[in-house]
Amino acid sequence: MTNAQITLVQIDNYGPWTVTPEPRREVDLQTLQSRLYADLSQLIGNRQGYVFFTRFDNMVAVTNGLSMDDHALVQESVANRYPVTVSLGVATGTSPVQALADATEQLQDAGSAQDKSRREILRGRTIDEEFRTDDDIQIAHFDVNDMTGNFTDEVNAFDSFIHIEQGYAELMKYMREAHDSLSFFVGGDNVIAVCPELDEAEYEDAIRHVRETVEVELKVGVGNGRVPQDAGMAAKHALETCRADGSNVEFQ
Amino acid sequence: MTNAQITLVQIDNYGPWTVTPEPRREVDLQTLQSRLYADLSQLIGNRQGYVFFTRFDNMVAVTNGLSMDDHALVQESVANRYPVTVSLGVATGTSPVQALADATEQLQDAGSAQDKSRREILRGRTIDEEFRTDDDIQIAHFDVNDMTGNFTDEVNAFDSFIHIEQGYAELMKYMREAHDSLSFFVGGDNVIAVCPELDEAEYEDAIRHVRETVEVELKVGVGNGRVPQDAGMAAKHALETCRADGSNVEFQ
Amino acid sequence: MTNAQITLVQIDNYGPWTVTPEPRREVDLQTLQSRLYADLSQLIGNRQGYVFFTRFDNMVAVTNGLSMDDHALVQESVANRYPVTVSLGVATGTSPVQALADATEQLQDAGSAQDKSRREILRGRTIDEEFRTDDDIQIAHFDVNDMTGNFTDEVNAFDSFIHIEQGYAELMKYMREAHDSLSFFVGGDNVIAVCPELDEAEYEDAIRHVRETVEVELKVGVGNGRVPQDAGMAAKHALETCRADGSNVEFQ
Amino acid sequence: MTNAQITLVQIDNYGPWTVTPEPRREVDLQTLQSRLYADLSQLIGNRQGYVFFTRFDNMVAVTNGLSMDDHALVQESVANRYPVTVSLGVATGTSPVQALADATEQLQDAGSAQDKSRREILRGRTIDEEFRTDDDIQIAHFDVNDMTGNFTDEVNAFDSFIHIEQGYAELMKYMREAHDSLSFFVGGDNVIAVCPELDEAEYEDAIRHVRETVEVELKVGVGNGRVPQDAGMAAKHALETCRADGSNVEFQ
Ligand SMILES: Nc1nc2c(ncn2[C@@H]2O[C@H](COP(=O)(O)OP(=O)(O)OP(=O)(O)O)[C@@H](O)[C@H]2O)c(=O)[nH]1
Ligand SMILES: Nc1nc2c(ncn2[C@@H]2O[C@H](COP(=O)(O)OP(=O)(O)OP(=O)(O)O)[C@@H](O)[C@H]2O)c(=O)[nH]1
Ligand SMILES: Nc1nc2c(ncn2[C@@H]2O[C@H](COP(=O)(O)OP(=O)(O)OP(=O)(O)O)[C@@H](O)[C@H]2O)c(=O)[nH]1
Ligand SMILES: Nc1nc2c(ncn2[C@@H]2O[C@H](COP(=O)(O)OP(=O)(O)OP(=O)(O)O)[C@@H](O)[C@H]2O)c(=O)[nH]1
Ligand SMILES: [Ca+2]
Ligand SMILES: [Ca+2]
Ligand SMILES: [Ca+2]
Ligand SMILES: [Ca+2]
Repeated sequence: MTNAQITLVQIDNYGPWTVTPEPRREVDLQTLQSRLYADLSQLIGNRQGYVFFTRFDNMVAVTNGLSMDDHALVQESVANRYPVTVSLGVATGTSPVQALADATEQLQDAGSAQDKSRREILRGRTIDEEFRTDDDIQIAHFDVNDMTGNFTDEVNAFDSFIHIEQGYAELMKYMREAHDSLSFFVGGDNVIAVCPELDEAEYEDAIRHVRETVEVELKVGVGNGRVPQDAGMAAKHALETCRADGSNVEFQ
Repeated sequence: MTNAQITLVQIDNYGPWTVTPEPRREVDLQTLQSRLYADLSQLIGNRQGYVFFTRFDNMVAVTNGLSMDDHALVQESVANRYPVTVSLGVATGTSPVQALADATEQLQDAGSAQDKSRREILRGRTIDEEFRTDDDIQIAHFDVNDMTGNFTDEVNAFDSFIHIEQGYAELMKYMREAHDSLSFFVGGDNVIAVCPELDEAEYEDAIRHVRETVEVELKVGVGNGRVPQDAGMAAKHALETCRADGSNVEFQ
Repeated sequence: MTNAQITLVQIDNYGPWTVTPEPRREVDLQTLQSRLYADLSQLIGNRQGYVFFTRFDNMVAVTNGLSMDDHALVQESVANRYPVTVSLGVATGTSPVQALADATEQLQDAGSAQDKSRREILRGRTIDEEFRTDDDIQIAHFDVNDMTGNFTDEVNAFDSFIHIEQGYAELMKYMREAHDSLSFFVGGDNVIAVCPELDEAEYEDAIRHVRETVEVELKVGVGNGRVPQDAGMAAKHALETCRADGSNVEFQ
Repeated sequence: MTNAQITLVQIDNYGPWTVTPEPRREVDLQTLQSRLYADLSQLIGNRQGYVFFTRFDNMVAVTNGLSMDDHALVQESVANRYPVTVSLGVATGTSPVQALADATEQLQDAGSAQDKSRREILRGRTIDEEFRTDDDIQIAHFDVNDMTGNFTDEVNAFDSFIHIEQGYAELMKYMREAHDSLSFFVGGDNVIAVCPELDEAEYEDAIRHVRETVEVELKVGVGNGRVPQDAGMAAKHALETCRADGSNVEFQ
């Protein structure tokens, strides 16, 4: 059984900050957001975790292996280098969706995301070392088949992107509703999902659903691990097997 | 009449690079992509342009005011600091979608996005100085009404995000098909669209379509300018007017 | 005659900030400082200027070609993305040292570098467009002869570094006192100096002084330009001529 | 007794790269170098180590607590995100200078720093876990007395900097020759030294030497630890005691 540790990263009071005293230059906001995400990728990634940009003002991380102290250090490091601070809610569970719901509640209970006085909250709990197993994380790496040949090299860049976005919007919703999974667009034509223990038939089902609903052809590699980095790398290798064998679903 | 200058930024041969000689660590790819985007935001933003992350491996920029020499310098600066290079296709037109289609063709004609020998292409043309006007760009800044009170503070972070994503997927498609516009998610609950000369009724129409189709409530501020930065900042101020007046569509 | 436009960049009230409420982690300070410098390099470099890290809390830029509005935008962009703000003093003159002295005074007159209420000062004046010439800037690029063969590959890394540092400490002092120039270590075994109109004999003299005082063998390429980027690139090409011809001083 | 683990970080074949095919724009080199340093600060700092920019093409890190695998990951992460690669030599010893000499030899034995075919070397050894103690590292944090009141607010920014540089050049040389220590300028008026087990009298001696030779007044805080981060933070607290008590040397 999986046991995901999920962290919600929320920029404190960010909406009001973006327009105080006047609307800030969009290019600076974009730079700030994407660099903060890049830094979190390194801060969390260096501890074997994964973080997804999601909305940028709310990011979701898979943090098995990170202690509350590690979280505190990430929080401190952001405060030392950015004009904004972040709050962190941490929760665990066999269902990634439930874990994220619990993590979200940790922050909601502390006040509104746009409450001026709610800053640098750090709440929740991590998995006790003794309960951690090598199958705590299941990661699925989805990818569109021959995106380059069918789209990137053929139609205009926005229509290519619409194709990917329609696939992603459908996949994220279906995986959440049917399979309790959290799916994140990670650039290109790739989506990475954090899943409970799903089997081959369930992945086939999701791929079929997306094909039938929005005509996007996916393949997926699946990996398990004690930490996100191991599960994610196994998923990537499984995806390479899909590529080599022409299959749709592969487990590593 | 608008006259958008659109640049397609494409990382050269990126797919193969991500798995050569073996799949690269995802956190490093995420860091690379988001920092490249942040740098382009500064490089282009410092010349009054806008760039959107889109797929990250294909990014779309609005570059009125940038010459081909400016483009060459952006390209050189990326090559000097990243392990990957970028190709740039530039085109102009009254319809942003058509301009992007032309920009895309510039690159497609030069070879596949995954052709090893197609590197650092720079093709296309910019608007001659004498033909530039103060209304060349129309930018619309869309925003979800009371996202914080209705979602961020109430439901789990993924369901909030699904809400935003469904709104975005619908809006991007509708604005492209009905109104020849390019719409980009820019984080939070915000979408920025590059539009031809649209009027209030057309924006009302788009907002109604999204409300009726996926039940997402939007407002929009619209601005015009000679360069993207001016149009975008005007749109932001117009959006503040929506907030102050409780209106749905405002032009600055 | 040269006419350098020099900008002093000073982080506001930085000393107290580094220890409030408690000493901040050094690695975060190092990251903050070097990224701020990298960003200024891009912000100023994209407008053809040069900036040197100097003390990091006080950086010196050569800004011919940047208006006061450009300076304001650099200042705003830093405030939008960092937990600290910067003050900028700008001055011009035939002597780079005198110009920096005047730029420094602009800030000193506004209050102490460690005065809590002195923030985001922007004072001084730039060169009127009509008075700018193609020889406003003279840049000299100094380099240690065969550093790799004599040191890097031969002695321990710290003794190599001591060699470079002794050369730099001597050169910076001599160039300032004898030749009114500002010399900055830029990494490796390289020093870039912003000079008034010096001739070959004066560069020979400086090289001789350093050789005789601390036994460090230098060569130098010199370039002139309307903007720092052009003067600096000419100096680099001149330095390549030194390399090709085995000469000590070359003008481009 | 101390037991420092020192890592030499060397950019591979960097000199030739900076001028191939032609001299690269200096602002891009500066950006590349300072960001690489910032990233190493985070990569190593997140594992409780310290890294100093030194020459930028050769950086020195104190890495007690990092395994060879950690080093490999740092190396891989750089290669994934930069146009250059780095080689790493690791060595340990009671004398930091000797440890760095051994680390340097690891790389020198593998080929020249400017040998095209010598890339991504990773050699040396770390301290076995069982031999690590809480006093392995001694770090001294030197600082100039009242730099702001006497210089920054009084003289021009370059003369302030000359003052600091003369102090640093003298201190680095003396600490290396008399006390086997590695001293690094870290910005502002601060120097951090990695030392063997020195006592109060030895620090008094160094401070006296600098005062008498170049008239720079220093104070120093000293800390010990199992990892650089702990020793460095203790040194910072000791320095605050100097500030509070008006003393010259404090141990934490
Ligand atoms: N985040 C991330 N993106 C990737 C990865 N691999 C590929 N991509 C992205 O996906 C895009 C398309 O690459 P591919 O999936 O290799 O190309 P394709 O044409 O679809 O080919 P096949 O998937 O092999 O059918 C690239 O430009 C990248 O942006 C990865 O491991 N992580
Ligand atoms: N990129 C970008 N994002 C913004 C901007 N303003 C707000 N946001 C994002 O939008 C999120 C929500 O903020 P708001 O839209 O102010 O909050 P809200 O609760 O929806 O309130 P109203 O829109 O006023 O009804 C913030 O967290 C930001 O991520 C902006 O100018 N640019
Ligand atoms: N900032 C900067 N540093 C450079 C530049 N060129 C070289 N360097 C640095 O100088 C170091 C030494 O390179 P070189 O000067 O080429 O090597 P060398 O062995 O001294 O050889 P010669 O100077 O040709 O005698 C490199 O590692 C870089 O750090 C440059 O244009 N700018
Ligand atoms: N790297 C680093 N630099 C620091 C630190 N503390 C201060 N500085 C730098 O030192 C500069 C001068 O600050 P202070 O040393 O506090 O000022 P001062 O006027 O010399 O005052 P005293 O040292 O208290 O006499 C600052 O601008 C910073 O650049 C630190 O912990 N680390
Ligand atoms: Ca694909
Ligand atoms: Ca909103
Ligand atoms: Ca040299
Ligand atoms: Ca001081």
